[in-house]
Amino acid sequence: MVRRRVVILGGGFGGLEAARHLKKADVDVTLVDRHNHLLFQPLIYQVAAGALSSGQVAAPIRHLLKRQANATVLMATVTDVDVAGRQVGLDSGETLDYDSLIVACGGETSYFGHEEWRGAACGLKTLRDAVDLRERIFGAFEEAERTSDSAVRDQCLTFVVVGGGPTGVEISGQLAILSRHTMKRDFRRIDPRAARVILLEAGGRVAAAFRPPTSANVARQLAELGVTVREHATVTDIDEHGVTLAVGDKTERIATRTVVWAAGVRAAPIAEVIARAVGADTDRAGRVKVNSDLTLPGCREISVIGDAARLTGPDDKPLPGLATVAIQQARHVANAIRDGQPGASTPFKYFDKGALAVIGRGRAVGELRGHRFSGLVAFLGYVMVHLFYLGGVGGRRITVAITAIGSLFGARESRVIETELASSKGPPSIAEARPNDHLT
Amino acid sequence: MVRRRVVILGGGFGGLEAARHLKKADVDVTLVDRHNHLLFQPLIYQVAAGALSSGQVAAPIRHLLKRQANATVLMATVTDVDVAGRQVGLDSGETLDYDSLIVACGGETSYFGHEEWRGAACGLKTLRDAVDLRERIFGAFEEAERTSDSAVRDQCLTFVVVGGGPTGVEISGQLAILSRHTMKRDFRRIDPRAARVILLEAGGRVAAAFRPPTSANVARQLAELGVTVREHATVTDIDEHGVTLAVGDKTERIATRTVVWAAGVRAAPIAEVIARAVGADTDRAGRVKVNSDLTLPGCREISVIGDAARLTGPDDKPLPGLATVAIQQARHVANAIRDGQPGASTPFKYFDKGALAVIGRGRAVGELRGHRFSGLVAFLGYVMVHLFYLGGVGGRRITVAITAIGSLFGARESRVIETELASSKGPPSIAEARPNDHLT
Repeated sequence: MVRRRVVILGGGFGGLEAARHLKKADVDVTLVDRHNHLLFQPLIYQVAAGALSSGQVAAPIRHLLKRQANATVLMATVTDVDVAGRQVGLDSGETLDYDSLIVACGGETSYFGHEEWRGAACGLKTLRDAVDLRERIFGAFEEAERTSDSAVRDQCLTFVVVGGGPTGVEISGQLAILSRHTMKRDFRRIDPRAARVILLEAGGRVAAAFRPPTSANVARQLAELGVTVREHATVTDIDEHGVTLAVGDKTERIATRTVVWAAGVRAAPIAEVIARAVGADTDRAGRVKVNSDLTLPGCREISVIGDAARLTGPDDKPLPGLATVAIQQARHVANAIRDGQPGASTPFKYFDKGALAVIGRGRAVGELRGHRFSGLVAFLGYVMVHLFYLGGVGGRRITVAITAIGSLFGARESRVIETELASSKGPPSIAEARPNDHLT
Repeated sequence: MVRRRVVILGGGFGGLEAARHLKKADVDVTLVDRHNHLLFQPLIYQVAAGALSSGQVAAPIRHLLKRQANATVLMATVTDVDVAGRQVGLDSGETLDYDSLIVACGGETSYFGHEEWRGAACGLKTLRDAVDLRERIFGAFEEAERTSDSAVRDQCLTFVVVGGGPTGVEISGQLAILSRHTMKRDFRRIDPRAARVILLEAGGRVAAAFRPPTSANVARQLAELGVTVREHATVTDIDEHGVTLAVGDKTERIATRTVVWAAGVRAAPIAEVIARAVGADTDRAGRVKVNSDLTLPGCREISVIGDAARLTGPDDKPLPGLATVAIQQARHVANAIRDGQPGASTPFKYFDKGALAVIGRGRAVGELRGHRFSGLVAFLGYVMVHLFYLGGVGGRRITVAITAIGSLFGARESRVIETELASSKGPPSIAEARPNDHLT
């Protein structure tokens, strides 16, 4: 008898947990991801800010599953899903048959239809994003130091963060710490403390997933760190020279070379492809409206979990895009599959573990089932939660935790611009040396 | 009275040491580099092999000089040197006047006139090189796991290293450890231990900078690790599908997707530009033939140090391209400048600190003034020397040293492919969501 085949699309927190939870199940698991790594998403802003290196927030998926004999990991792109034939097509030409399909493809940056902003405004979802943004941030300080044009200098020393959600709050806090503390003695011609960090929020308050008093607390603490928080500020244009805002009925222009786009996330496109194929609805952010048991309507063998799924909680609000949600959903689906079902048949219930956002230098806020907390308690909570989850990423939790905590106070270990400037004058002369004429 | 101005081209070991040595001198120092970081060159092969992250082998130059008030660091490209006018032109449009110029621009990869090999054969001189090579190495294993074509699989699992100098020895040793130890359990369809690592050396022996018995020792230890060492093998062509060799009067083809080019280094082009301007000679590798005091003929205010300089030692052989040489030369020049001279006027004498090469897993070789040593003594020597110099890079010596030593036994902390595969089917749908419609 052929073992049941489970295909998992996506190797984020949800996909990986689903695979791990099936370790002792009598199934063959194949996990497909376009990346070779599990990304510790909540810390990638620290890669952008030069505090952590990419290897510290990511671990190879196949390494994490190396001791699980029933799991195969493929780095591949899904090109096609044949719902009727129960097959997934990959860009390598291979097709994978499945008895159960778990769609855990997560989200990606959305520019809300303004694809032309992509070049100027750096997203912060992938490792590539974070490394690119790091190059821009540190490159802007370098350009400010070397230019003799004061307008260019001001433009280089202005950093605009669009979107006041957790990512926007965290990266703007880090940018303020970077310029006001970490690098304050590094330059001779500019004073990095003069850098402006502007956080733009189209809605009425930052950290809007929290309750209003917490939002106010976040805004106040950001201001104390040196961030200019602007609410009710809608971005109407972004190009490589700056950002245009609509504030009330007035238009305003901010000259900047560095724009961080932390405003929009949508489900990865493959989620919508699958939804269309089975006739399921999607919401504005491309998330698939799933049954209460996470399966798709009329299609019990396909489950969607994590950021690609839209499921409303008891308060009629969609469940938040948190790792804890994805992990709990993964276990719910995997438990059913382990019991011999194609997918879950009981409703998924989210056990709320609360939410935290860190601002930096000992400042953080949190909420857990209606209770607010902030300051040192929230900060230590943040540290402990991240310590716990990082352990799952690679087992280097102590080193990374120390680095991450240090960074919240201004330490920076990875402020490297990998790209060099163009070569010096003239084409490199053709060497006449023979092979192995080393300089050693 | 205007303070004397010292301009240093290059922020490697030599340039940085020159700047530091002038800390208490009554001069203004400007250090110019195309990169923002000092690179710990001897360890970048470990970045390529996924053992260290880029932030662990590089530190921002301006951070290293932050407490030196008389030093300004500019990330810029030199476009012009006006020897008569004593000015350096930068790509930013700025010109720097100098009373003393220290050329410490180092070396770069040379393909010996075969620029067409650059795309297929990855150099290993810059951080960018190392990160690119890392993506190729781990990408090749991923492709081998997912392909169904056995010829492609064999090609992906073949790694060719061209050049048997220290870099070639170290990276081929690491590749063998990677495939035979680190990743041996990570795959389901391929056996990474079947990967072939081939080290090609055009000359008669690897590690030719050492004496013949040491070379033989290196070759034997590489073979024990699983590296196929081929001497007298001259590369005649490289493309994206493989390498063509001339062995005696026969031609041979090795199918591979991953070629590491560790065969040639030449001085950065700016060295030759300056040499021509003052009428100094250069050797085949573009190195400037300097006076015994490191100045240029007829031009006492310009000194060339490190890999860009050619100076013969008492044995009539050119001094090796080692960090210790560059550092000693930097001090020699800086001492003279501190004493009020434009450059040194006494001959530079190299104090030989020996040479070491590491093979991996406790294997290393070394030579010091005619004495050979290998095994644990050489290995511990290697570890201690690197610990000492890494301290200068960033002060994170313990963490990095532990990681680096671990890697020599197979530990890998940074096996990340930053680049993702192309997006899944179809263009991303246009989101209709408004700004701040986070998934949180």
